[in-house]
Amino acid sequence: MRAPTSDLPQITADILTRLRARAPRVHCVTNAVAQTFTANVLLAAGAIPSMTVSADEIGAFVARADALLVNLGTFDAERRDAAGTALEVAGEEGVPWVLDPVFIDRSEPRAEYARTLVAQKPRAIRLNRPEFTTLSGLEADGASVTQYALDTLGVVALTGETDLISDGVKQYALQNGHPMMARVTAMGCAASALTGAFIAVERDPLVATAAALLAFSVAGEVAGAKANGPGSLAVGILDALYALDRDTLVEKARVA
Amino acid sequence: MRAPTSDLPQITADILTRLRARAPRVHCVTNAVAQTFTANVLLAAGAIPSMTVSADEIGAFVARADALLVNLGTFDAERRDAAGTALEVAGEEGVPWVLDPVFIDRSEPRAEYARTLVAQKPRAIRLNRPEFTTLSGLEADGASVTQYALDTLGVVALTGETDLISDGVKQYALQNGHPMMARVTAMGCAASALTGAFIAVERDPLVATAAALLAFSVAGEVAGAKANGPGSLAVGILDALYALDRDTLVEKARVA
Amino acid sequence: MRAPTSDLPQITADILTRLRARAPRVHCVTNAVAQTFTANVLLAAGAIPSMTVSADEIGAFVARADALLVNLGTFDAERRDAAGTALEVAGEEGVPWVLDPVFIDRSEPRAEYARTLVAQKPRAIRLNRPEFTTLSGLEADGASVTQYALDTLGVVALTGETDLISDGVKQYALQNGHPMMARVTAMGCAASALTGAFIAVERDPLVATAAALLAFSVAGEVAGAKANGPGSLAVGILDALYALDRDTLVEKARVA
Repeated sequence: MRAPTSDLPQITADILTRLRARAPRVHCVTNAVAQTFTANVLLAAGAIPSMTVSADEIGAFVARADALLVNLGTFDAERRDAAGTALEVAGEEGVPWVLDPVFIDRSEPRAEYARTLVAQKPRAIRLNRPEFTTLSGLEADGASVTQYALDTLGVVALTGETDLISDGVKQYALQNGHPMMARVTAMGCAASALTGAFIAVERDPLVATAAALLAFSVAGEVAGAKANGPGSLAVGILDALYALDRDTLVEKARVA
Repeated sequence: MRAPTSDLPQITADILTRLRARAPRVHCVTNAVAQTFTANVLLAAGAIPSMTVSADEIGAFVARADALLVNLGTFDAERRDAAGTALEVAGEEGVPWVLDPVFIDRSEPRAEYARTLVAQKPRAIRLNRPEFTTLSGLEADGASVTQYALDTLGVVALTGETDLISDGVKQYALQNGHPMMARVTAMGCAASALTGAFIAVERDPLVATAAALLAFSVAGEVAGAKANGPGSLAVGILDALYALDRDTLVEKARVA
Repeated sequence: MRAPTSDLPQITADILTRLRARAPRVHCVTNAVAQTFTANVLLAAGAIPSMTVSADEIGAFVARADALLVNLGTFDAERRDAAGTALEVAGEEGVPWVLDPVFIDRSEPRAEYARTLVAQKPRAIRLNRPEFTTLSGLEADGASVTQYALDTLGVVALTGETDLISDGVKQYALQNGHPMMARVTAMGCAASALTGAFIAVERDPLVATAAALLAFSVAGEVAGAKANGPGSLAVGILDALYALDRDTLVEKARVA
């Protein structure tokens, strides 16, 4: 018998129910490699994606969106302009946004740009270990994730074998997922977009972020258990997200 | 016993046979999210896709193509230039083209641009309900689809739970498909590209458009019946299109 | 009983083992249609893809990469600039690179540009029959592949029903694969990227190229045997690459 350690699985099921009922619009400024899978993850979960990076149009899309994702993968001049306009409109209209600073450890100009974005107060930042270290200048551990959340006044979600999510006060540690998820492109990017969808229907950004990552990693675990390799895992995670229910979340979640 | 209401399933099978024999080239100016799935739908059906949006090259590709698709999703300056050149060459060379005015209900500049494209006489326009209303200024129903086909001197295909396809004189209503198709990105975009492939091998654009949408929605229905969710549906629709045969079309088609 | 005709299957298994252990970084300047599948093929095999085409950043990515791919599909001004910078940095840093001159038979400016790239000495060129003829000016056969390898001082890999791979001295002929692979977009593009990953961990570029194409085509054959169509083939090839082992390579390989 295992003592219940968290009500997060139940809360995640509640948020998913709202998400499916409200079908929030999530506008994504994201990299070309991730666009299709990200759109399909949002649709499978019940959200409505849009993806334009055209300077003429992005303002209109963001103004009508319920959340915004800014992902720095394959970042070019057009996407930089698009992100600038998108964040301006998001600020005016009160649209919450999520930052995914992909591969900033590989390119110093990208890291510098990411720092300017952090100053514009994303509701949540999702990143991996080398990205965290590059952005925060801190070694990645539970204490530094809390510290950086306090520094940035937002939620910080460090994903990896264990996902650590903190708003500077409270911290979740999630241990779901499947090792083969690292062998499919755009998994992290899609998780960040899903975080946007959850933030659109849940006021507490810490709870929304933790719930989104729990839903995604439980779906990954369900898919991974049946998959023959990374190809069928990617397909299966869309199927599992679409079908994800309260019982599965409660049964599978490993939350500390 | 059900009385036969249409010879469209038989005609669709005939067109598919020609398509597989001739392997028409379909050049697609389409959005980044839809490119891969669209290319795979064309290949699965037996056509040869090309996708460049480079201003230097697109003329050469369109001149050698058997049909052209102009899709307005994620529309940027580069794609706008590309579409301009593509339509000029298509006009000179007599290459038929299909318009897919994605998300024009979300962005007024995109809607205005779509109206200028309609004036350049697409052989067919495929769109959903809010896009139809934005483009035509009419409430979407059977009568307005016929009206708008008369106005534009082309085929208008309004897709949704029922697909209505009209050339202003005759109208088809198709009731195939699967609800989960709405949970996969680029389904409509790919259906528009497939319409281009059918138009390349069938002179009557009304018949070609109705046949393409019938083939696509029957494939979706076949795939949906076996799918565990939207991930396996997207995979299955490619398999089903590749294998689609006369018996399946005749058995499954619900045409009025 | 069949006499062993080649040690290539064993060598391929050895290279795959090194690839999985070292996880080489492969930077890809590739077309938008192929990006996601290419990234997933590299990840499934054990390599780490990156894909940015931003002029500001590509130098940093290439400098830290173990191999570079330049693929000319959907080639635009941005990708042309990106390739220029990428090749300059690759030259300075000694990063080996692979050329995939997609669709140069369709566009003369693209063919001319490909010829300037050949002069910059790719370690390997992978192309199909019409692309070979356009680039080399020769009819495609075993002798002309050898000739063109001598002319370019690199490895030439002509893929098709039989894959011919030559460095001007020695030639491999591979007869694996599955006909349905031609019905999935980006198969050739992904094979070229995988060639980059193999070149990153094997000094002899002829052996590396032949081994990469053998691994890819055996994976295609394994996937094709189980697939219901091109959709499940694309998924299955990722699964098969991930699971590919020595026994399967030795059992399935048809090398002359």
